[in-house]
Formats: sequence, C-alpha cells, structure tokens
Amino acid sequence: MSEISDKPRFPGQAGASIASAEGLARAVVHTASVPPPEPRPVNVALVGFGTVGSSVARILSGGPSHLRLTHVVNRRVERKRVDWLPGNICWSEDFEDALSDSVDIVVELVGGLEPAREWVRRALSAGKSVVTANKQLIAHHGPELLELARRQKRQLAFGASVAGGVPVVSGLQEGLAGDRLFRVCGILNGTCNYILSKIEEGGGSFADALREAQQLGYAESDPTDDVEGYDARAKLAILIRVGLNCEVAPGEIACRSIASLEAVDFHYARDLGCTIRQISCAELKEGQMFASVQPALVPLDSPLARVQGRQNLVMATGEFGGETVFSGHGAGGHPTAVAVVSDLIAIAEGRMNGWHSPAAQRVAVTSDFSAPHHIRFTVSDRPGIISSVSGILARHGISIEAVLQKPGYTRSRLPFVMTLEECPNSLVEQALVELRDLDFMVEPILSLPLLR
Amino acid sequence: MSEISDKPRFPGQAGASIASAEGLARAVVHTASVPPPEPRPVNVALVGFGTVGSSVARILSGGPSHLRLTHVVNRRVERKRVDWLPGNICWSEDFEDALSDSVDIVVELVGGLEPAREWVRRALSAGKSVVTANKQLIAHHGPELLELARRQKRQLAFGASVAGGVPVVSGLQEGLAGDRLFRVCGILNGTCNYILSKIEEGGGSFADALREAQQLGYAESDPTDDVEGYDARAKLAILIRVGLNCEVAPGEIACRSIASLEAVDFHYARDLGCTIRQISCAELKEGQMFASVQPALVPLDSPLARVQGRQNLVMATGEFGGETVFSGHGAGGHPTAVAVVSDLIAIAEGRMNGWHSPAAQRVAVTSDFSAPHHIRFTVSDRPGIISSVSGILARHGISIEAVLQKPGYTRSRLPFVMTLEECPNSLVEQALVELRDLDFMVEPILSLPLLR
Repeated sequence: MSEISDKPRFPGQAGASIASAEGLARAVVHTASVPPPEPRPVNVALVGFGTVGSSVARILSGGPSHLRLTHVVNRRVERKRVDWLPGNICWSEDFEDALSDSVDIVVELVGGLEPAREWVRRALSAGKSVVTANKQLIAHHGPELLELARRQKRQLAFGASVAGGVPVVSGLQEGLAGDRLFRVCGILNGTCNYILSKIEEGGGSFADALREAQQLGYAESDPTDDVEGYDARAKLAILIRVGLNCEVAPGEIACRSIASLEAVDFHYARDLGCTIRQISCAELKEGQMFASVQPALVPLDSPLARVQGRQNLVMATGEFGGETVFSGHGAGGHPTAVAVVSDLIAIAEGRMNGWHSPAAQRVAVTSDFSAPHHIRFTVSDRPGIISSVSGILARHGISIEAVLQKPGYTRSRLPFVMTLEECPNSLVEQALVELRDLDFMVEPILSLPLLR
Repeated sequence: MSEISDKPRFPGQAGASIASAEGLARAVVHTASVPPPEPRPVNVALVGFGTVGSSVARILSGGPSHLRLTHVVNRRVERKRVDWLPGNICWSEDFEDALSDSVDIVVELVGGLEPAREWVRRALSAGKSVVTANKQLIAHHGPELLELARRQKRQLAFGASVAGGVPVVSGLQEGLAGDRLFRVCGILNGTCNYILSKIEEGGGSFADALREAQQLGYAESDPTDDVEGYDARAKLAILIRVGLNCEVAPGEIACRSIASLEAVDFHYARDLGCTIRQISCAELKEGQMFASVQPALVPLDSPLARVQGRQNLVMATGEFGGETVFSGHGAGGHPTAVAVVSDLIAIAEGRMNGWHSPAAQRVAVTSDFSAPHHIRFTVSDRPGIISSVSGILARHGISIEAVLQKPGYTRSRLPFVMTLEECPNSLVEQALVELRDLDFMVEPILSLPLLR
C-alpha cells in the first residue's frame, strides 16, 4: 500500500485535502506532486458539559485518534471536572477560551437561542468550524449562521439537532440527494411519543403518563415545548430545509397540543385499525408547503404506529426512491453524542456537512391538509344530539362516514366519535367553531386527522 | 449574500474546493484570495443502459443542473436510444468513449465481475471518478479498486451496491461514524423477502412463490444467487467493511438456502410469536466476526419481521447510539438510480464518499452464532421417535425446550418441531449429522436459529 492509503487524511493536509477536493479539477495538476504532510490532530472545544457534552467527551476519549478534546467550557466548571479525561484539557468558565488559536472546531451544547447564537457567530467569525445539537438555534437562525459559515469558509454542522443519533439530516441532505423529495413525515419528539404509547398501552390518563415521564426524567417540569409541539416543529423546520430545500420559519408551522388526548381516544382509534401519535409532517405540493405538528390517527400497519417509547422515526418520500425510513434513538446523551461526533469526523475529513444545495426557497405554508377526520365529542346525553351535530356538518359540506359509541360511560359525560370523509382541515375547523357552542358539549371537542 | 453563497460549489472550482478542504488548514491562507472561477458542469458517462441506467439518465435529465450526461455506452446501443435525452449525447458501443477527456465521472452499471473490474480500473487510471451499483465487484475487489482510487486521487462510490435507494452505505460510514458499531443485521435480498412473505401470507409452497416472483420479474430464471444467499452475502461483506471496518471476503460468509422452507414452517413459527426471514447478520465480538446469511426465526415485534415484499432493512447497533434502522426500496431502477445520483452529487460537491476510515482490519470469520434453534423434522411416524431424537441431542449436550406437533398431517409424512435452548450452531450441526441418518426421517431436517 502506498503511504497515502496508510494514513487517515485530513483537510489540514494539503496533499490529501486537495486530493479529495480536486476530484474533477484536472487543471490543478500540480497537487499530485505536493507530499502529504504529517496529519495533525483536530482540536475540539466543548461548550456545555451536560449529558450530551460528557458523552461526546467519553466517545472522543476512546475514539477517533485524530480528534482531540482540548477545551471544556461550562458555568461553574469545577463541579464538572472528571477524572477520566486527560489532565492537559483546559477547563474554563469563559467562552473566550473556546476561541483559542489551537481550537479547530467548537461544539455548542448550551442550547437555547442566546447566548448560543452569539457564541456560534463568534466562533465562526474567529475561523472555527462549529458543530451544534441546538434545534431552536438552527430552526430560527440557520440561514444567517450558515451564510456566515460559508463566508468564513468554515463548516456549521447540525446533524444532532434532529432525531438524536438517527442520521436523518445527512440521510436527507446527502444520502437521498439524488431524489426529488416532496414529503417528510415523522415522530420527532420522544417525550410525546413516550406519553402517547404509555396511554395506549396502560389506558391511564394524559396527566398520569406525563407525570411518569417527568419522574423518569423524560419530560421537563414545564412540558410545554414538547406537549404543544414547539420542539417538534423546530426539528420539522430543519428537515424541511435539508430534505425539501425550502425555507420555513418554525412559527409558520401550525401546532396542536397532545394534552387533550385520553385513553378513550385510543380505544376508538383501535376500532378503526389505528393508533394515535404526534406526527410532524411536511409536504410540498404545487409550490405550496403543507406543514403541521399534531396528534393524528395512524394505521396500525404504518411504521409510524410502531414507534414505541422515546424512539424517533422519519419517513422521507421521493419522486424516484419512494419511501425511505430512518429510525432509532432520538434523544439521550449517548445517541445525540454519536451525531455530534459523526459531524466532527465529517468536518475533520473535509466532507462538507453543511448546506450544499442551492439556496432554500421561500414558500407559502399552510396546515390545511385534506384528510379524513376523527372527531371525539363529549356530551351530556339527550335526544337530538346526532341530529344537531350532523346538521352543522352538513351545512359545511362535510360528509359523515360513521358514528361510533362505546358502552360503559355515564350519560352526563358521554364520549362518542364521528369519522368524517376526506375534506380540508379548514372546513372541519369552521364547523368546530359552531359545534363548540352547542350546549350539550361538556368538554372541548377533539379533532384528529387520519394520516395515510 | 456574497457571491460564494449564490453558486453551487464544485471541486472543479479552485476557490470553492479549497474553501471546503481548507477547513482546518489555516496555514494555506492564500486560498481565500483566489477568486472562484465559474462553475462548470460535471460530465457523466453511463456504462450500461438497462433499467437502472435509464433511470439515472431520467433523473439527470430533469435534475441537478451541474451534472450533465454526455456519454451512454452499451452493447447494440442503437436499440437503446431514447428520444427524451438531448441530441448531443454520444451513444456508443465502445467503452473507450467513456474515457474521453471531457468525462469526469464514469458510472458502471454493467454488473458482474468482468469486464466491470477492468473497466473500473481503466476509468480510475484515466483520472475519472467512478460510481458503481455493482455489489459483487465491490465485495470481491473493493480494497484493490479503492486503493487505486486513492492513488489516483479520485473517488469510487458504491452507495447503490447495497439496499438500492436506502442510503445505508453512507449512513453507516458517515452518519454513524461517531459510534462504534459492532453489529449489522438486515434483510438485503428483496427477492427472498418477497418469496418468504408470499409463503407467510398465502400459505403456498416455496416453488409456487418462486414461480410467482419469476413471473413478476422479481426473480431471475436461475434464482440461485438470491435463494442460496450469494447476493445477500456480497452486500453483507460491503456493510461489514463500511460499518464494522473489517475486511471479509464474501466466500468467508456462510450461507444457507431458503429453498427448503414451506408453509408449515411459518405456521410453527407463528405459534412461537415469530416469522421467518432471510437474515444477513454480522457481529464483531472479542475480535471475532460472526457472519452468516440464512433463514431465521424473527420475533413478530422485530422491525425485521415487518419487512414485507421486496423491501430492504438494515439495523446497525453501536456501543453508544444503540440500534438505528434504515429501510426502504432495496431494488428497482428508480430507487437504485437515486443512490447512483446521490453518489454523483457527493463527488461533484467534493464530499468524499469513498473510504475515509483507517484501513479495514482482517478478522477471523465464523458462522458459529449461539442461539436458540428451531428444528423441523419430517418423519414417517412410529413409536420411539422423540426418544431417539432427544437421545442424540442429549448426547451432544443440547437441551430441548419444547416439542410441537400440529394436527392434520399424514402419519407417513409428519412434520414436527423441536425448539432447542440457546447453544452454538456448530453443536446443532454435529447433532444433525447423526439425526439425518435416522431411518424415519423422510425429508431433510430444517434447522433455523432464532434471532433476538
């Protein structure tokens, strides 16, 4: 074997980097005569040393020899010091230390919008590449930061920002680059999926399942971001960018809470051969983007229905390749750290992991999917209810497919379900405004689309 | 936006390529002052214009503007000419034309070992990068060809060689690069999966299911490569290389045929909460490689059990990220073409898609997995059978877990099943040598491991 093949090759090596980059540039023939210099380790500064940060350190300490952790930055860093890392690592409370000359890549793991945004800007401006797991940062400020990275000729990689260890960002952006993807659909929030699969399996209430998730550390004490869909929609905005090449702000994606779901909904869903999941879905159709994060009925034989506990799953659909599915551990220190380290390796090896595609397009966003719907009413029973409800639906041009009512509930708080034939979501919403005011409704009406 | 961000960047552009490659090489500061030249299209020669080749042409003709199909090489090429490609494409019967100066990347889609190997060698030697969908070529001659590509500073990409459109080669090699994978397990042959899911669903014979697959064009008239596992083991050898970083020759991977499976085996499997699939599995354990392609029992709740028809699925297991699953269309012109075009884009954008990892290790290979086993005997019934069989198993130190016998079969040709507690496959094989000779056996004994 030649000496070239015996050594890992890094962008820091002129010979090797040009070898990879020169691929098609036969004009630059002089490169072949430049002897490859010795590889030098790529120095990494970790900013944020929580669960993911310490897992990254753990993988780096026993892993790829060309990546070297040199700096750890954290508030009150003394608490964080561990004995299993080499003694020469610089532990600091000052972000400036991550910008030291010796640092090649800054890993941002502090989360949230500020100071993360400022720090990423500063790192890129200082000529560092950046790896981040920060979905909100990338969903909200991705374009501006990627543009800065480009100007600086540095990388900004964010594979860990969606679906933890599941390599779906690179899968859509690179692995399926040859297809024309038009749909991305998935389960992007492990906490919601844990709660929903818990209700499905145990028949308990939403409140019980949430409490259990909190006790296990799967849900925050304030679960708003997960339950209301804000976490998932940030991830969906990122997948829309890397998979569908469109620019969508997270705030443009409609969200619906899973908080009003109860065991009875799963019983009715089961009768229809379905279960209920928080589904993040985006579809590009005739120049319009349909996007939403909401609880939906999914057929039991769909890969989405089989996602249990905190797993994540993404289905990408393309014009040529059909449906491709990625699934695995969407959260947790170790899986997320795998995604961070994979990005570090990609940068160290000079593989672009940023944004190769042409500038993402701005498109109009709507959540007005057409779908069959499943509506759960909880009423104080009396004669004429079906007639009133069906009358309103008929006036809105909505066809009822079936009316389902399970026995065993008190008449004063009786749940029943209507399934509606396929129609635009907006039509159902308009009808719901009227239905809500009917005096026999004793609980908010729950409307779930059926995903096929 | 700066001019850099407005344009797609190719390795042919000095400014851009060095921008990506320079990532960490701040010594090479002069590069920033080189103005990026105009992008030039990357010229592609297609060698082989069958189903996949014409799909590639179809995608390129409406797709990424920077990839331009310039040559199509095929035997009796006149038959192949299509009217939906530009008139200036060179249609040729002569492989030499694919080596024209103007060609940047040669796509090898002729399949088989020769002349594919010689052509890929020649293309690389002529300074072309190569994209191939040829699993046998990469499984058998990958190391030598990749080494040549390295020496030539060109790329050899083979994402289409495993699982068609499912981006599992890049998924393992790049997406999960940060993990330490130790196991790769999957359904890699769509023809076998079609046959097995057909028997499972319809209860027909193996011969009927095979005939149907042949009529639909899913199986060759000589189905040996699929049915005996030779196709899947070539793909497994490639996944072992890219995922487990080990060098294994396809011939070192033990194969077992699916040809002796019948509907009765699925009935017994179902009673055990399982189904049967052709499973390709490799596990690296204490420096040894366990690898095999064989029909196996898989629990119904495993993702492997749910793969229907011609779908492919790969589960990769890592020390940090746990199990990650990739699935989708493993065959067919369009999905395979997506993988080819994704590789073309990766090369055009200067992303390495070849072999970054340190040289693969040679390891000892065995198929001697430890597993519970499921043994189907077909006997001419008479007293003393269980006693004879269990006596032999006991002498080999194998514990029986259960004996199952379904009603409804004639006594002269009676199938029954024994499930054995976990033990090495080799022990079962030794016992089978003796069991085979028992005079009441009227059909070959079928032994299936249970995969967990």
